[in-house]
Amino acid sequence: MGRQVNKRDFPVEQVRRYLESGPLLLLSSAHEGERDIMTLGWHTVMEFTPSLVGCVIASGNRSFELVRRSRECVLNLPTTALIDEVVAIGTSSGRDGDKFERLGLSPEQQQGIAAPGIAECHAQFACRLHDDRLVDQYNFFIWEVIAARVAPTPRHPRTLHYAGGGTFLVPDKIMRRRTPAILALDP
Amino acid sequence: MGRQVNKRDFPVEQVRRYLESGPLLLLSSAHEGERDIMTLGWHTVMEFTPSLVGCVIASGNRSFELVRRSRECVLNLPTTALIDEVVAIGTSSGRDGDKFERLGLSPEQQQGIAAPGIAECHAQFACRLHDDRLVDQYNFFIWEVIAARVAPTPRHPRTLHYAGGGTFLVPDKIMRRRTPAILALDP
Repeated sequence: MGRQVNKRDFPVEQVRRYLESGPLLLLSSAHEGERDIMTLGWHTVMEFTPSLVGCVIASGNRSFELVRRSRECVLNLPTTALIDEVVAIGTSSGRDGDKFERLGLSPEQQQGIAAPGIAECHAQFACRLHDDRLVDQYNFFIWEVIAARVAPTPRHPRTLHYAGGGTFLVPDKIMRRRTPAILALDP
Repeated sequence: MGRQVNKRDFPVEQVRRYLESGPLLLLSSAHEGERDIMTLGWHTVMEFTPSLVGCVIASGNRSFELVRRSRECVLNLPTTALIDEVVAIGTSSGRDGDKFERLGLSPEQQQGIAAPGIAECHAQFACRLHDDRLVDQYNFFIWEVIAARVAPTPRHPRTLHYAGGGTFLVPDKIMRRRTPAILALDP
């Protein structure tokens, strides 16, 4: 249990708080007894309600087949504590064996879907496939977040933001501004 | 000229280095004598070659009409030096007057498109509309970056990563790891 993170339910329409800033995610999925984890850096929030997130999953990935068939996934939010696991996941293939077992990560059951989350992550967003129209051409999946679980502390976890070439940016500083009219910043 | 940033050409297939980490962007556009700037937090890299970036632009935005008609835009990368301008742009409407003039920002000509960039930003990515199939349903535009200009220093600019509610995360720390096999992390 040592590295597992206690989480609470979180409103799905507010997931932008964790996803809009662009952290690397770990996408976990399962189908017919197989499961996989991949790193995900190409994603964006698309809507508050329903809570939509779009992402690119390269078709060569083992996870690509699992999510196409199961139409489900979990978006897990790792922090700097998991940087070595993130690198190991991003630089190996699901075809070489189960990544949960190999890396000592704990599958955690989600609400409403069968795919397992990763207990060691700061947050988990359980997703169902919402639109696959752009998958054939762009490998672009649009997901609906149907349930979210988030650790209550720290309020701003030290997430990993990838800049290519083995360089990870970590938001260590926070700036605050009043946003009175709240248009594009907080629609 | 004081705040304007000197930039050099940058390979368009490498824009993920600046965009994948999820910074707030300033999207500038123009059409038939009108121009506008908006903040953009919902975006993702989608492909290296052609260099594709997808983003959501709320249809109520003045910029939405300008980019739909001109089929062009510039994605500008602001740093912490421009945080107050970012807030002002994100909390006002283009219908209330020209944002370049109001905020003392300098329009800068781009290669290959008519839309102006913002000279005070660290980088500029000139974009042409690549696919508007998802605009009606999701306000989601897919752009091709046709030219990029980037300041040579600092190598990792202090970008703004929005977490909602007036909170901006700033990547002030850098972690490096060897990524030998380079699968999902560096496809």
